[in-house]
Amino acid sequence: MLADPLSTTFSALADPTRRAILTRLSAGEASVTELAEPFEMSLPAVSKHLKVLERAGLVERGREAQWRPCRLKAKPLGEVAAWVEQYRRFWEQRLDRLDDYLRELKAKEKKKRGRRKKGNEIV
Amino acid sequence: MLADPLSTTFSALADPTRRAILTRLSAGEASVTELAEPFEMSLPAVSKHLKVLERAGLVERGREAQWRPCRLKAKPLGEVAAWVEQYRRFWEQRLDRLDDYLRELKAKEKKKRGRRKKGNEIV
Repeated sequence: MLADPLSTTFSALADPTRRAILTRLSAGEASVTELAEPFEMSLPAVSKHLKVLERAGLVERGREAQWRPCRLKAKPLGEVAAWVEQYRRFWEQRLDRLDDYLRELKAKEKKKRGRRKKGNEIV
Repeated sequence: MLADPLSTTFSALADPTRRAILTRLSAGEASVTELAEPFEMSLPAVSKHLKVLERAGLVERGREAQWRPCRLKAKPLGEVAAWVEQYRRFWEQRLDRLDDYLRELKAKEKKKRGRRKKGNEIV
């Protein structure tokens, strides 16, 4: 069964090495050898990861003879962003609630300190 | 090997049924039976998907005796949004380029039409 494009993208992103490869490529194109360097991985292992990224349309290989540089293709990432965007109000609500809670906590703390100060003045 | 949280989230999202479950839960909490209805799936199959979503912290089950409603937990989605955000300039660049191209195309089309009109006038 062929996965839908978004599932293929999510699946390709579900690996820290593949995400690190994308981060590296966001700084500019690179050869497979260059990509393999920071990972202490064999070239075939890196090539395997690259194939997954290519299949998901996240990486493109150049046609320039031997070197065949890898390039980041961001279109599927834009689709991930659009998908996750529909849930923004949920995680923002969560942060809002945390914010309210912290404000409340600070207000209580201030009140307590004020009372303590007053108490000291009386003593 | 335990996957890192972001990989676990991406992996959980790499399935259209699981994404549809999250969409359904974004409208409010639901029981497993309610979740299973639109999918023509067996309850055990839906439960299996729910377990994957729970492990990724995307769904929480209530403790209310029998019913145990499922709830959306958006925190991991906020983390996906934050991760993908760093690539925004790449997919926006791409749209900008497409925009430039369309503008150029329209300008050329206008020029051509203008010339054709002039031509007609001469004839």
